[in-house]
Amino acid sequence: MANTPSNNVVWHDHKVDKQQRAQAKNQKPCVIWLTGLSGSGKSTIANVLEQKLHALGKQTYLLDGDNVRHGLCGDLSFSDKDRVENIRRISEVSKLFVDAGLIVITAFISPFRTDRNSARQTLEQGEFVEVFVDTPLDVCEQRDPKGLYEKARKGDIKDFTGIGSAYEAPTAAECHLVYNGETAEQSADILIEQLQQKGYLG
Amino acid sequence: MANTPSNNVVWHDHKVDKQQRAQAKNQKPCVIWLTGLSGSGKSTIANVLEQKLHALGKQTYLLDGDNVRHGLCGDLSFSDKDRVENIRRISEVSKLFVDAGLIVITAFISPFRTDRNSARQTLEQGEFVEVFVDTPLDVCEQRDPKGLYEKARKGDIKDFTGIGSAYEAPTAAECHLVYNGETAEQSADILIEQLQQKGYLG
Repeated sequence: MANTPSNNVVWHDHKVDKQQRAQAKNQKPCVIWLTGLSGSGKSTIANVLEQKLHALGKQTYLLDGDNVRHGLCGDLSFSDKDRVENIRRISEVSKLFVDAGLIVITAFISPFRTDRNSARQTLEQGEFVEVFVDTPLDVCEQRDPKGLYEKARKGDIKDFTGIGSAYEAPTAAECHLVYNGETAEQSADILIEQLQQKGYLG
Repeated sequence: MANTPSNNVVWHDHKVDKQQRAQAKNQKPCVIWLTGLSGSGKSTIANVLEQKLHALGKQTYLLDGDNVRHGLCGDLSFSDKDRVENIRRISEVSKLFVDAGLIVITAFISPFRTDRNSARQTLEQGEFVEVFVDTPLDVCEQRDPKGLYEKARKGDIKDFTGIGSAYEAPTAAECHLVYNGETAEQSADILIEQLQQKGYLG
């Protein structure tokens, strides 16, 4: 196309949009939002899920404590107010990634229904896929990968989810992983089946 | 692969990384950071650039006032402190997008050298491509697309970049668009040439 002013007008008016970005990736962008107790397996399942989606040719991105807590949300504490802001920013960043055409996986405890619903409202209809990683508290506490439950029981951590602070379980999550001794890989396979059945993987 | 615990370990240890995400997109991820006065043409050039990169098969995302100011940075004012935080969050989100394997284009005035250098430091070597959209103040003021210069001259907007507040021009930007009456499309073509010459488009 020649560099004429009239062409220039066309270029101006027409932005690359979500649909084009998604089409170029041959997928339906969405946020796969894993919620569950500390130690429930969210991050591990999310990692395996991302590897499997990558192997299926999907273009993905994983947001979790590792890449968000020290960067974008590095200025936030663990106060109630800052936890809300943490989830708000994650929602907004997820929205940008969905706009970019990617399948975003998030792995955060996100214990409160209002916060998860705000995240849902941030996205468009059908773009927010809530996944309840439903591992019982006693299993999580037995795993205690970071020793946090022990500290919480001793009173060294206040407001720890499941001990001093409530975990509000989803009541209508799109996907539900009820723990029955599965490995993370088995859980990821079950999740992929659920996602496929509900049409999220196209 | 069977669902055995030993395979499970392999899945755990091995995360999908930046290199794999970039390879799947057949490109070298980076941030193309446009800086310049209000009215310099940053957003328009950024939009045309994104269309052209999309046409070249590149996977891109554009961060600008339209998708950042009301969402992720919707809680920020235009105070000095909040402007710094605004640029910080944009840098951190750009880093996440680069990690996801995308070519990110940003279009923000970003008038201060320290803020742009912080953004550069957030990214890895060679991932931050500063582009000085070098349109003279009088041209920007004549265009005045949002009527902001007029308000600033009247004193209705304080600390407006170029009038009441300094614009610190880049001294060693990777790319430099000196305005000589080009259309946005011509500027985008010049920029693509510069990006290609410097190896950013692979």
